Amino acid sequence: MKLYDLELSGNCYKVRLLAALAGIELEIIPVDFLDGEHKRAPLIDKNPWGEIPILEDGELILRDAQAILIYLANKHAGAQWWPEDAALQAQVAQWLFTAANEIQHGPNAARLVDKFGYTLNKADTLAMSARILGLLESHLNQHEWLALNRPTLAECAVFPYVALAHEGGIQLSDYPAIGRWIKRIKALPGFIPMPAI
Amino acid sequence: MKLYDLELSGNCYKVRLLAALAGIELEIIPVDFLDGEHKRAPLIDKNPWGEIPILEDGELILRDAQAILIYLANKHAGAQWWPEDAALQAQVAQWLFTAANEIQHGPNAARLVDKFGYTLNKADTLAMSARILGLLESHLNQHEWLALNRPTLAECAVFPYVALAHEGGIQLSDYPAIGRWIKRIKALPGFIPMPAI
Repeated sequence: MKLYDLELSGNCYKVRLLAALAGIELEIIPVDFLDGEHKRAPLIDKNPWGEIPILEDGELILRDAQAILIYLANKHAGAQWWPEDAALQAQVAQWLFTAANEIQHGPNAARLVDKFGYTLNKADTLAMSARILGLLESHLNQHEWLALNRPTLAECAVFPYVALAHEGGIQLSDYPAIGRWIKRIKALPGFIPMPAI
Repeated sequence: MKLYDLELSGNCYKVRLLAALAGIELEIIPVDFLDGEHKRAPLIDKNPWGEIPILEDGELILRDAQAILIYLANKHAGAQWWPEDAALQAQVAQWLFTAANEIQHGPNAARLVDKFGYTLNKADTLAMSARILGLLESHLNQHEWLALNRPTLAECAVFPYVALAHEGGIQLSDYPAIGRWIKRIKALPGFIPMPAI
């Protein structure tokens, strides 16, 4: 399986992190992001969104980090990460959509402004970050893990841009429960970091 | 199963639509949204996000329309809507994350500004709408359905706020393939509308 990858992308890191934690082998293909390689052929034909990561497994080509996590868990990582049971799967799924919605448009977007010069409204990204980090802090004050009392795909999806929040000018010192959760994730067997994490 | 619901919410409609198409019985509990019923007890304890829909099935309480769709499909609707096979499930999943990300912050957000007076940056919502509607148009020019050549959860998640785009000041006349797809969905057995669709 090929992962079209950027080392500095938290979305790509989500996939590398699951692969490391679950022992899945990936062929990493670095993409020249600054040169816009993902915006032109052949990558734009693999993913018309013009984004990475892209996963290629034979004929199958997938976009969206969260959808790739689901694929890898179903195919290679097993029910520990993405349960088959309806109630359990839905509880993990809630957090994958939090990653695609509030985390994407909160801490991820704030970092895009500060680190990559995106012309987004920084104040909006900070307001959305404060809201979701507050909800996350409150949840993690009562739970060691996001769902099911164990690490799941929820951690792979939510952790990266929370742990990168400081690169968008957001300090996590006001969120001690989030800080303890980050330490628990970093202590998982097989954990790999990325730059700034 | 109880669905805490608002008739004018496209996110609630996603759940009602799947239930109608797949023949799932729901107990609909109308929420007094204008009075902020979802922002205070007991609903805020069921969903700290302060949002609807909320699904309650015995002890299980779920937030996020997409996660609720996954639960209902796994438990009651079957693999036609949410396949178990890794490759097929991931292809549907991609579109659920598109709904939570680009559709939520594009046409849904534009409508929140125009219809409900939210103080979001309207220009940003229109720019994001134009991008995702262009990608959707291009995809639907080559495919009758979003994934797997048949209606799936992808339709339930993406259709509502696309079909409501005009309430955010977005005209779909420039997107004929989207228009044909909307007609196909409206012709599905069991289809139900919502106000303005």
